[in-house]
Amino acid sequence: MESLRREAGAPALTAEVLTQALPYIQRFRGRSIVVKLGGAAMAGEMVDTFAGDVALLASVGIRLVVVHGGGPQIGEMMERFGKSARFVDGRRVTDSETLEIARMVLVGKINSGIVAAVNRHGSLAVGVSGEDARLIKAVQRDPSLGFVGEVAEVNTDVLERLLSMGLIPVVSSIGAGVDGQSYNINADTVAGALAAALRAERLIVLSDVGGLLGDIDDPASVLSEVSVSDLETSLASGEVSEGMIPKVEACLAALDGGTGSAHLLDGRQPHVLLLELFTDTGVGTMIRTEAPA
Amino acid sequence: MESLRREAGAPALTAEVLTQALPYIQRFRGRSIVVKLGGAAMAGEMVDTFAGDVALLASVGIRLVVVHGGGPQIGEMMERFGKSARFVDGRRVTDSETLEIARMVLVGKINSGIVAAVNRHGSLAVGVSGEDARLIKAVQRDPSLGFVGEVAEVNTDVLERLLSMGLIPVVSSIGAGVDGQSYNINADTVAGALAAALRAERLIVLSDVGGLLGDIDDPASVLSEVSVSDLETSLASGEVSEGMIPKVEACLAALDGGTGSAHLLDGRQPHVLLLELFTDTGVGTMIRTEAPA
Amino acid sequence: MESLRREAGAPALTAEVLTQALPYIQRFRGRSIVVKLGGAAMAGEMVDTFAGDVALLASVGIRLVVVHGGGPQIGEMMERFGKSARFVDGRRVTDSETLEIARMVLVGKINSGIVAAVNRHGSLAVGVSGEDARLIKAVQRDPSLGFVGEVAEVNTDVLERLLSMGLIPVVSSIGAGVDGQSYNINADTVAGALAAALRAERLIVLSDVGGLLGDIDDPASVLSEVSVSDLETSLASGEVSEGMIPKVEACLAALDGGTGSAHLLDGRQPHVLLLELFTDTGVGTMIRTEAPA
Amino acid sequence: MESLRREAGAPALTAEVLTQALPYIQRFRGRSIVVKLGGAAMAGEMVDTFAGDVALLASVGIRLVVVHGGGPQIGEMMERFGKSARFVDGRRVTDSETLEIARMVLVGKINSGIVAAVNRHGSLAVGVSGEDARLIKAVQRDPSLGFVGEVAEVNTDVLERLLSMGLIPVVSSIGAGVDGQSYNINADTVAGALAAALRAERLIVLSDVGGLLGDIDDPASVLSEVSVSDLETSLASGEVSEGMIPKVEACLAALDGGTGSAHLLDGRQPHVLLLELFTDTGVGTMIRTEAPA
Amino acid sequence: MESLRREAGAPALTAEVLTQALPYIQRFRGRSIVVKLGGAAMAGEMVDTFAGDVALLASVGIRLVVVHGGGPQIGEMMERFGKSARFVDGRRVTDSETLEIARMVLVGKINSGIVAAVNRHGSLAVGVSGEDARLIKAVQRDPSLGFVGEVAEVNTDVLERLLSMGLIPVVSSIGAGVDGQSYNINADTVAGALAAALRAERLIVLSDVGGLLGDIDDPASVLSEVSVSDLETSLASGEVSEGMIPKVEACLAALDGGTGSAHLLDGRQPHVLLLELFTDTGVGTMIRTEAPA
Amino acid sequence: MESLRREAGAPALTAEVLTQALPYIQRFRGRSIVVKLGGAAMAGEMVDTFAGDVALLASVGIRLVVVHGGGPQIGEMMERFGKSARFVDGRRVTDSETLEIARMVLVGKINSGIVAAVNRHGSLAVGVSGEDARLIKAVQRDPSLGFVGEVAEVNTDVLERLLSMGLIPVVSSIGAGVDGQSYNINADTVAGALAAALRAERLIVLSDVGGLLGDIDDPASVLSEVSVSDLETSLASGEVSEGMIPKVEACLAALDGGTGSAHLLDGRQPHVLLLELFTDTGVGTMIRTEAPA
Repeated sequence: MESLRREAGAPALTAEVLTQALPYIQRFRGRSIVVKLGGAAMAGEMVDTFAGDVALLASVGIRLVVVHGGGPQIGEMMERFGKSARFVDGRRVTDSETLEIARMVLVGKINSGIVAAVNRHGSLAVGVSGEDARLIKAVQRDPSLGFVGEVAEVNTDVLERLLSMGLIPVVSSIGAGVDGQSYNINADTVAGALAAALRAERLIVLSDVGGLLGDIDDPASVLSEVSVSDLETSLASGEVSEGMIPKVEACLAALDGGTGSAHLLDGRQPHVLLLELFTDTGVGTMIRTEAPA
Repeated sequence: MESLRREAGAPALTAEVLTQALPYIQRFRGRSIVVKLGGAAMAGEMVDTFAGDVALLASVGIRLVVVHGGGPQIGEMMERFGKSARFVDGRRVTDSETLEIARMVLVGKINSGIVAAVNRHGSLAVGVSGEDARLIKAVQRDPSLGFVGEVAEVNTDVLERLLSMGLIPVVSSIGAGVDGQSYNINADTVAGALAAALRAERLIVLSDVGGLLGDIDDPASVLSEVSVSDLETSLASGEVSEGMIPKVEACLAALDGGTGSAHLLDGRQPHVLLLELFTDTGVGTMIRTEAPA
Repeated sequence: MESLRREAGAPALTAEVLTQALPYIQRFRGRSIVVKLGGAAMAGEMVDTFAGDVALLASVGIRLVVVHGGGPQIGEMMERFGKSARFVDGRRVTDSETLEIARMVLVGKINSGIVAAVNRHGSLAVGVSGEDARLIKAVQRDPSLGFVGEVAEVNTDVLERLLSMGLIPVVSSIGAGVDGQSYNINADTVAGALAAALRAERLIVLSDVGGLLGDIDDPASVLSEVSVSDLETSLASGEVSEGMIPKVEACLAALDGGTGSAHLLDGRQPHVLLLELFTDTGVGTMIRTEAPA
Repeated sequence: MESLRREAGAPALTAEVLTQALPYIQRFRGRSIVVKLGGAAMAGEMVDTFAGDVALLASVGIRLVVVHGGGPQIGEMMERFGKSARFVDGRRVTDSETLEIARMVLVGKINSGIVAAVNRHGSLAVGVSGEDARLIKAVQRDPSLGFVGEVAEVNTDVLERLLSMGLIPVVSSIGAGVDGQSYNINADTVAGALAAALRAERLIVLSDVGGLLGDIDDPASVLSEVSVSDLETSLASGEVSEGMIPKVEACLAALDGGTGSAHLLDGRQPHVLLLELFTDTGVGTMIRTEAPA
Repeated sequence: MESLRREAGAPALTAEVLTQALPYIQRFRGRSIVVKLGGAAMAGEMVDTFAGDVALLASVGIRLVVVHGGGPQIGEMMERFGKSARFVDGRRVTDSETLEIARMVLVGKINSGIVAAVNRHGSLAVGVSGEDARLIKAVQRDPSLGFVGEVAEVNTDVLERLLSMGLIPVVSSIGAGVDGQSYNINADTVAGALAAALRAERLIVLSDVGGLLGDIDDPASVLSEVSVSDLETSLASGEVSEGMIPKVEACLAALDGGTGSAHLLDGRQPHVLLLELFTDTGVGTMIRTEAPA
Repeated sequence: MESLRREAGAPALTAEVLTQALPYIQRFRGRSIVVKLGGAAMAGEMVDTFAGDVALLASVGIRLVVVHGGGPQIGEMMERFGKSARFVDGRRVTDSETLEIARMVLVGKINSGIVAAVNRHGSLAVGVSGEDARLIKAVQRDPSLGFVGEVAEVNTDVLERLLSMGLIPVVSSIGAGVDGQSYNINADTVAGALAAALRAERLIVLSDVGGLLGDIDDPASVLSEVSVSDLETSLASGEVSEGMIPKVEACLAALDGGTGSAHLLDGRQPHVLLLELFTDTGVGTMIRTEAPA
């Protein structure tokens, strides 16, 4: 801040930022925002920056839910166990041992790491698995893939209560079937389902991509806003890249469930959450029901 | 904002301002801040800027109480009535007619004007006279001065309730004696008494002076922080200028009653309230009980 | 009381009054009653008697709202300012300066006076302008009349809260347009609009007339009860005197909005409020939706 | 009321009664008043007048507890059972059968009768025995008298709850020992103990005597006020008549427990409760801690 | 317990009973159960066992309402008064004196006895007559039978409040007409009406019969479950014995009003309430809307 | 249950068990009980029986907190990672990698397994790590042992809230230092600290030992009750076996913090929780402050 204040125009700039931000702070207060954490934002120092922003947002009364996955880390752990992944039609098969490893890595390692990072900033994060208090009821997606699940039903009671205590739930994408069997679920899907169930104000998906691209070969062609109908058309016509499909579907599911808007942001940009939420000009791609003006 | 965002470093600056401001926003939420409005800040366009800031502050949950006086305006009105001021030992005598004029000007003109200005920004201001719901119990200051009062007792019930409704009380410095007689009271004194009674987080006195001066002849020698004990010494030794005395006394009364800190700010600087409350480096002079480090 | 008790039959009479009054006291408890104060009841000692009754009524749990105007006092003040009234089609034009004077007189003088009078009786009155907390949203009535407004919308939140605090709002008939422009509004109209918005149990209009007359030339021909339909007929046929028209219209508006009954009472009769509310035989003229039996 | 209103001065008288009564109505609202019902007030039409007053008092928010005994009625019932009373040192012995008869008469007959009478006036009376919810814990007074009890402890929980429901408890003077044994207790004593336990505003004892007499032979010499110390002196010196002793002791116990004042009233005077509570000049004898002025 | 624990298999049995009982304890918590007490269960030591069970049930949060009659005891008392019963078409005529005796016996003797018995077990029972707080509004059944009433309307407010205080209402089957006239009502009918009005979880009718018999001449032929439709058929065809008719009708009325199930149990079996409520295999006859499987 | 009911005396036995159990059910309702799960009770089918009992206890309103460790399972996992344990003075050293493995096993495997088991019985268990919401603030025990922690402070807010939601927290014995560093902590110690912080009614430590032995060589010599002072003596004199020391110390810490009593039970006995809590004769060893009678 020092440098900022030393400059001549700084007070005016500061006042301008604050004047712009305060109405958003007021607007988001008490509202739920679901953030899917992925890619670089989960690694190294960026986790800490992310955790700091999460703590700041929670401090002004925003009800934040953080969802994370961990595919690469699960893969690493399997290797350490000398276990090789098996694929059916290009999709990884999750046998009982893989599931156990996934659960250990997601719940016991990644989740704990995020919780610890947020708590270093003074906010009270709480690790939550989809199996806790029956948060996520899962069904098997496809018997040939083993214990890979889909979200069948969400019971947000425990999230609502943790949020009302001012706590920040950090959710691992594990669910349980009616018979108590655990399933590994795609984390984007979980984030979309939670945003829908909470009728969140916003779903924010952080990844190593800056948003939806107008030209798939030009990383600078990030679209600032896309309507649901345009996006459905793109999805149907196969224009959406493989890796973006679950993210886009999660956004559509969230919007369908009543979420105000969904945002695909570049998790590599520091403080991208603050910039998106508290300035008039957003960053990344915003998806909402009505067509862009 | 446009220009800000267009610059290369803008996102970083914006993030820096927000990162610095959010903890203050959290800290002041639900806390009471008493602002004495005076001088230029009450006039022309500045009232509107001030009203906008007040609305923003209230929108993030700060419990604001605005206190105003209006000596010059009362003088003007008396002239229009063809009534000349009478003085005893250099102090204006307030006879029954003067009191009636003062009440009309303060309650019916200035107060109404501030209320209207704040309400144009979407916040709900409510005009309050010290006579309402026995807010300010007054006693006569000196019989030779007529209906000039001192604050004998403050009953903040009505303020607390208005604040808890999310409303912004705008208080005129009129009080009532036990017998129902009205008195005109110095507005700085009223602000200090209210800050003490509310155990406010801060008392902020806006005037056309930038703060306490280290060198009375150098307007640039504004002291950034003064301790109560140093201030009492200055006051006793006559170093404080005539016009600042009631302001300084109001600050000391507020601090004595449990107010966290008192601030003398330059009401001519736009958004001075935001800059004072939401940045690490304050503006103007801060007075607090413990000596500056 | 002494004389009353000394007489032979006094205890029986006392018991009779009490037996009759208690069910009304119970019935009105917690209910809202809007009283429009006008004429003699606003002047001299009668204000004090009125204030005493208001304090008594509030003490037994009746939620009282007092509305006042002040045409004659505004006229007086304009004269003192050497400003002469201008009329268009017989209606006073309110230019910017007239509005400012009206506001000063209504809010800063009459309202403050009534508040002070009630508070001398131990109850907690609070002055409220229609501009406070957006109580009365106004629209211009007729451009050629200047800043004369009509009630466009009423937001009774602040009244409800003050009432639930056991306070007595005293309302000045000033409103604000969406753009924040102030307007002077007929006080009868404001009283009727507030009674409707509060779905008051009763609207009571005090004036120097004892009620509606059966024979316009015989002051003793006060009608004790009139139905809405009869009154609408009289209004349409021009039988209602000039001065009574806004009062009658206010009553009809209140009844239309759900007020239980409306009453035109003689404000010159001491304790007329108590007699009307707590005895089987009312005083003045009662107007209600259904036809009199 | 008709006759009252027809007279010339009636409105003034009515206003006078109301002006005097309203502050008392406000003062007693939410306060507890214990009324011991005895003698003529329990018989014939007077029960109905009493019940009507009780209903009126409850309707304006006074928390009334009615206590009754029933010695003569118990005697009558014993006669019908062909059972003669046995005395030890002039006090009736209560054997097991007598107790059963007393309980039947008090709880099943007198209490039910009072409850029914009050409920005919629209208020919700509830019969309560001292055995209900352990209201009155009793101990045996003297083994030679059998099942005659003293109040050992009072648990007013159930009374407080019934009162807070707006109900009127009508209490029979039966208590239970720790072993569950029932005892018959003097009703004046019960009334005094309840007034003390409830820290009632007032204890009112209705009997066929108009109060304490200055001259025991002159029924017109009713004292209007007596201090506790004077009364204790009279009691010690044997000046208090036999029948008044338990009443006087109950008053002293109530005052000692924090009851505001105790009153001995003539239950034969219609509406004596209203006259006592709502007029400046009381009726009967008031006993309070401080000496009369 | 000693003997139980000493046996080899006792811990297993104990665990089995608890495992079975706990879900029922959870299920009935906070639910209302109306118990009609009659026959042997009201007499001698059985009252004490019954009272102990009632206290236990209340202690785990079941909202119990006990209803009792007392035909035989009323008959006995009438004899003692030398009053002979008069019959019309085989039904006892209740004249004014009989009613008074019935009220005394029910309210002043039986009710007080049950209340005292429960309170000896540490729970807080409260005697309630149907006349209290207008619990049971009655109408005359048949003028030729005198003051015999039917239930016209039930106002369970007072019961709900007593239950929410954790108290156990013990209800006498007396009601009051709109004019305040008391009526004696069949206690089975009262129990059925209260169960319906409270939408009780269960109505339990204790009598000296073990339930409905398959073969009217074989006391061992108790049916364990009967459907409402079968029961209505039996009732219509005259197969239900005289004494069981009001009980069966009360059960049907309760079920019709929303009671979960109705049970006819043998009041002579110790702890029959515990066994019915907390074990999988019930005792006596259960009646419910749907046909038995 | 079938066999139980078929026997002649079954109803009496059932009634006896219930009569004994109900007062305990009432007594423990709303009270907190901390259960340390260890040894056989964590393995195979016993986990399911344990989970069933936990669900039953929660269903009757007991606030259960389950704490678990997992030394053997951590050892197994380390082996799979080809990592050998290192010891200092006979205590395992926890380096950074070991800590990560411990966290994964405890939080991601054992905890998740217990949560899933309880949830299969219909209750809502929630996995909680000591790092969540700063539940357990840890300090390093001994630098030479690496990341082995001691409990420095417990913040039970999140547990209290989960308990008040009717949820069952299952706690892993991981804590975090002020700097956010994670530590592995002995689970007995954590259980004792939580019982103290919650002022639990009971601490129950389940292990493969039946309790404290009178004669260390005779497994049948289980002491049924030991006083704190006797236990401290035994501890000081080295009579307590190595494995029991942390358990005994946890019990003493809990009692010192206000826990009602501490119990060492044999986790291999089915339903040992139910038997301990709901029968007069306990099982295992009870430790409490006062000496056994």
